[in-house]
Amino acid sequence: MTKVRVAIIGASGYTGVELMRILSAHPGVELTMVTSRQYAGQPVSAVFPSLRQLVELEFSDNRVQAVAAAAEVVFTALPHKAAIEVVAELHAAGGKVVDLSADYRFSDRALYEQWYQPHTRPEVLEAAVYGLPELFREEIRTARVIGNPGCYPTSVILPLAPVLKASLVDTTSPVIVDAKSGTSGAGRGLSPGSLYCEVNESFKPYKAGSHRHQPEMVEQLGRVAGERPELLFVPHLLPVNRGILSSIYLSLARPVERQEIENLLAGAYADEPFVRLLPEGELPQLSAVRGSNFCDIGFVLSGEGRRLVLFAAIDNLVKGAAGQAVQNLNLICGLPETSGLLTGPMAP
Amino acid sequence: MTKVRVAIIGASGYTGVELMRILSAHPGVELTMVTSRQYAGQPVSAVFPSLRQLVELEFSDNRVQAVAAAAEVVFTALPHKAAIEVVAELHAAGGKVVDLSADYRFSDRALYEQWYQPHTRPEVLEAAVYGLPELFREEIRTARVIGNPGCYPTSVILPLAPVLKASLVDTTSPVIVDAKSGTSGAGRGLSPGSLYCEVNESFKPYKAGSHRHQPEMVEQLGRVAGERPELLFVPHLLPVNRGILSSIYLSLARPVERQEIENLLAGAYADEPFVRLLPEGELPQLSAVRGSNFCDIGFVLSGEGRRLVLFAAIDNLVKGAAGQAVQNLNLICGLPETSGLLTGPMAP
Amino acid sequence: MTKVRVAIIGASGYTGVELMRILSAHPGVELTMVTSRQYAGQPVSAVFPSLRQLVELEFSDNRVQAVAAAAEVVFTALPHKAAIEVVAELHAAGGKVVDLSADYRFSDRALYEQWYQPHTRPEVLEAAVYGLPELFREEIRTARVIGNPGCYPTSVILPLAPVLKASLVDTTSPVIVDAKSGTSGAGRGLSPGSLYCEVNESFKPYKAGSHRHQPEMVEQLGRVAGERPELLFVPHLLPVNRGILSSIYLSLARPVERQEIENLLAGAYADEPFVRLLPEGELPQLSAVRGSNFCDIGFVLSGEGRRLVLFAAIDNLVKGAAGQAVQNLNLICGLPETSGLLTGPMAP
Amino acid sequence: MTKVRVAIIGASGYTGVELMRILSAHPGVELTMVTSRQYAGQPVSAVFPSLRQLVELEFSDNRVQAVAAAAEVVFTALPHKAAIEVVAELHAAGGKVVDLSADYRFSDRALYEQWYQPHTRPEVLEAAVYGLPELFREEIRTARVIGNPGCYPTSVILPLAPVLKASLVDTTSPVIVDAKSGTSGAGRGLSPGSLYCEVNESFKPYKAGSHRHQPEMVEQLGRVAGERPELLFVPHLLPVNRGILSSIYLSLARPVERQEIENLLAGAYADEPFVRLLPEGELPQLSAVRGSNFCDIGFVLSGEGRRLVLFAAIDNLVKGAAGQAVQNLNLICGLPETSGLLTGPMAP
Repeated sequence: MTKVRVAIIGASGYTGVELMRILSAHPGVELTMVTSRQYAGQPVSAVFPSLRQLVELEFSDNRVQAVAAAAEVVFTALPHKAAIEVVAELHAAGGKVVDLSADYRFSDRALYEQWYQPHTRPEVLEAAVYGLPELFREEIRTARVIGNPGCYPTSVILPLAPVLKASLVDTTSPVIVDAKSGTSGAGRGLSPGSLYCEVNESFKPYKAGSHRHQPEMVEQLGRVAGERPELLFVPHLLPVNRGILSSIYLSLARPVERQEIENLLAGAYADEPFVRLLPEGELPQLSAVRGSNFCDIGFVLSGEGRRLVLFAAIDNLVKGAAGQAVQNLNLICGLPETSGLLTGPMAP
Repeated sequence: MTKVRVAIIGASGYTGVELMRILSAHPGVELTMVTSRQYAGQPVSAVFPSLRQLVELEFSDNRVQAVAAAAEVVFTALPHKAAIEVVAELHAAGGKVVDLSADYRFSDRALYEQWYQPHTRPEVLEAAVYGLPELFREEIRTARVIGNPGCYPTSVILPLAPVLKASLVDTTSPVIVDAKSGTSGAGRGLSPGSLYCEVNESFKPYKAGSHRHQPEMVEQLGRVAGERPELLFVPHLLPVNRGILSSIYLSLARPVERQEIENLLAGAYADEPFVRLLPEGELPQLSAVRGSNFCDIGFVLSGEGRRLVLFAAIDNLVKGAAGQAVQNLNLICGLPETSGLLTGPMAP
Repeated sequence: MTKVRVAIIGASGYTGVELMRILSAHPGVELTMVTSRQYAGQPVSAVFPSLRQLVELEFSDNRVQAVAAAAEVVFTALPHKAAIEVVAELHAAGGKVVDLSADYRFSDRALYEQWYQPHTRPEVLEAAVYGLPELFREEIRTARVIGNPGCYPTSVILPLAPVLKASLVDTTSPVIVDAKSGTSGAGRGLSPGSLYCEVNESFKPYKAGSHRHQPEMVEQLGRVAGERPELLFVPHLLPVNRGILSSIYLSLARPVERQEIENLLAGAYADEPFVRLLPEGELPQLSAVRGSNFCDIGFVLSGEGRRLVLFAAIDNLVKGAAGQAVQNLNLICGLPETSGLLTGPMAP
Repeated sequence: MTKVRVAIIGASGYTGVELMRILSAHPGVELTMVTSRQYAGQPVSAVFPSLRQLVELEFSDNRVQAVAAAAEVVFTALPHKAAIEVVAELHAAGGKVVDLSADYRFSDRALYEQWYQPHTRPEVLEAAVYGLPELFREEIRTARVIGNPGCYPTSVILPLAPVLKASLVDTTSPVIVDAKSGTSGAGRGLSPGSLYCEVNESFKPYKAGSHRHQPEMVEQLGRVAGERPELLFVPHLLPVNRGILSSIYLSLARPVERQEIENLLAGAYADEPFVRLLPEGELPQLSAVRGSNFCDIGFVLSGEGRRLVLFAAIDNLVKGAAGQAVQNLNLICGLPETSGLLTGPMAP
């Protein structure tokens, strides 16, 4: 079987490293080029010793055209804004792109511009598909530009979508999302708040109500549910390397029984390879998904069936970033969707 | 100055160890006896090497009467239920007691019995005072039995009380408390869920909507506010040794400005030695309170002033247990309230 | 291709869980039975939620004969002593066994009995092969009982063997091994020393000079080098889930240059798939091997070429236990040696 | 009692923060000024929220003369080299200085210059005293410039000094020091190696045989023992905030019994308030000293009494830096030596 030639632009962040880790064991893919301005000319293994013998490439600072020539599919793992033009150029060159920034996630350009900056390539944005396979698989198969979902949105949209779609939610109350993320979500950039001694043995909320993943969730949930929910999103920083656990609080329009919610979730996800619905008495935990592409979902009902709390756990670098990107790659290349993604979660 | 003679019953749990640590540096107190059935006959320092040279006692398994004879004030750090009779006996012997179990925290005996078990000493329960000094200082000064508050309730009642009292809250919506606790809150007992490899690099909710600290919060908030709020409490287990951070979500009855909430909190706590109100732009974090008796409180408004999120951080073993117990000791003995409690938080 | 039918006896410890994780993604193997006295009758996924959808078996408490009937190769992950008879029975039933206890690691029965207990099946012990493929690959291929090496010994024998074999070491000085292990090495058993709050933010030596992996190292190094070295082994407990880093101090018989040691190591391991020799300026670290079957080796010379410090890092659950056991399975079944073992290390 | 006026130059590193924490609870001291070029003009509590209400100062960028005018004793917590002139100026202005850099630790100027840089103030260096009170208490009392010991050297010199002094060590073998430090030892500076995700769940050696604390140890041990030992020092980075544990391997000149070593250590330290000698069967651990000024020492004998392994544990920020500096302050100001330093270790 011919392998799909793949490249990564901006491969030296945690998402890039995780992409290299996954792709190095992917049977249908050949990684041909990885770029990093910072490390250009250095072997990947000199910067990331975990990848010694697995990725025998050097980082390059090649131009987009050279990358386009080297690969059928390109992952762009750049900061938002920086990705706009690069993705557009790759697209123009005829390649397929899975973009891991925020730049191609929004259908509503105005909403993007309200929270980020002007989008200079609206025509490419329009062609892009939101890469959440469980909700938009068919669109993804034929897309040439994928906006790979944010880590928090993945953990929030998957559990919420079936419930909102069923019109069970009391729309006069906000959906409250109290989310907790491991520190790799903050990236490899140097800032005092990412130092070991600041994060370890601590825990804190940040950007409460003002994080840019909030509009992303609202837009996608609006597409699914028919109208945009009021959603209040408060992220917190966890002293772990990996993982997001989101606790989602809903007031329901009428009292429900456990079975009804179970049916809703099973209807949506029973056949999904990467969504695991937990039985009564079990709730998600980070250790059960670490290093894997799974999203575990559980829930409890309270207040005599009027209050629903949904819980979801993912690995932010896998289902929340690189793993989902590879799942999208598999779809757009016609490979088996789970290819390269079936490693078991690492526990302990 | 004569020192107050103090003893601890059940001193070999994490709360007991923390009490010994604090009392060993308390200038107004002499620790005369510590009991532990499990370690009776062993020097404290053989079991807890951190206390070598600081606590030169052996654990005993003395009866209550012997303890009562050895101390003017006794801390009981027993599991709930076990404390009922012990506290009553100490009370009958004429001593003062600060009880760290749940057995003397409830004014509403029926509510206690609904969540715990029958209370066999209702007359002592009636005499007991809820030991949250910032709200009930004057009652505490003259009490002889103190029900020392739960760790979660301390972190929730302090920020919520002034807001509920001001009748700002929309009572048709629940108060949502998403709380996260360090693992010392689970105690020193042996269970698979407390093993290092299970907790480390993980995070999970537990007892969602069914934790026994929920009725404790509801009762005390009801006393302060005039009516009991609907409250949905979901605790989570954090991979840190110490600390609780509670994120509290409220819908308000009318839109408010930041200044109004600041005034409410300052009105309640500006002069409190152990409550620190954070300025705009700052939110609590565990590292800022670790090892100290402080409760840090911050907040954000969202939804055009209709949604309020309160955040509070404490060290669960200090302000959430042993430190608050010593604060209560200081009050009932007429010592300076901050005595023994002014060590700065350990950061990093 | 027909898959090799495999079973695990004693599958509910950390080693058993790791075996299930690896085998669930192994293309040449079918896992047919897993036993656990403690969890018999429960689905694997109810006890280990990480394995949901990956291992669809229940734990059984089947007798050895039933296991032997269900599998061509059996992994025994029992405590030492308990394994002696079980392995012998499996052997008698004609199966192949990879034993992860200490019971079949020693060639020198007297040495085993000095540190453990009487060995009741010396004839099987005699047939067993020490399962360190990099040193004993050919013997392993044809063996029917493999004594899978201890975690510490793997991390010590691999770097030391080529140096000792070359007769470079001053035998009047001891070889000093200062080793540090993650907490999963202590197993899933309940003991106060394995509690999260005891291990986290701490670090300590234990069993200094008296750990039972010391004679295992000495025996195997003696086989390789021709005479048994004096070796002083001091293990320490690290606050991480996984990983062993061993720092090994040697006095050399004559001054050497860096190149000579590099040549020795390359001569031994340049073609090994799971040993990575680090270039000058790099030393091993746990994060580079986490979750993988790699052993990373580096070194420094000091004292004008008279003092050599070797460093090796492995994941104690993979190359130090389950991964190496699968490598042995591959060898004794004629599968590709790296099959199921090429997942990249998880960093971060 | 008049309080001693104290200032800190370079107060925004971890050592500076720890000094502020300790001094805020010191009964004999008033902190009058803290400087930080980076944070000049900002309240201490805005940068370090743990110190809110405890340190009500702003950081200044005052010149040395202004600091000298504000304080009788100044702590200089600057990087080495930067401290040379600052300390000399403070000295010239008539003040007392406790310097936490390496610049005034060496008696042997040539040795300092070999590992650091030219020392431009040799006359002040000559007047400086090495601030390890357990060894040099009387010199310290009358000194005006204290070179506060390095963190690693404190943990190595204290256990080794009595043994070397007794001429028990085989001088043909090196003293091997395998030391492990928490990450606060690396400081608050921004570097990839100090990021949470790089340190957490990892462990590694660094600067093996080439760390600048090695000559500091050698020089001071040489002063004590009469001749400089051959010492091989390999530090490692631990995933904890605080603490150093050093494991020290010695070959002895003749076989000894346990009692002999116990006597040596007791002879040196039995009356020391901050050295705790552990009984047989106990070894030091970081959790027992965390947050305290204690140095815990234990040992084992091996090889029929010919191999001695000493273990010492300290908190690198307290006995390894700020706490020892305050101990020195107490000595040079005639305050009780333990003043401000008797807080119990924080466990868990």
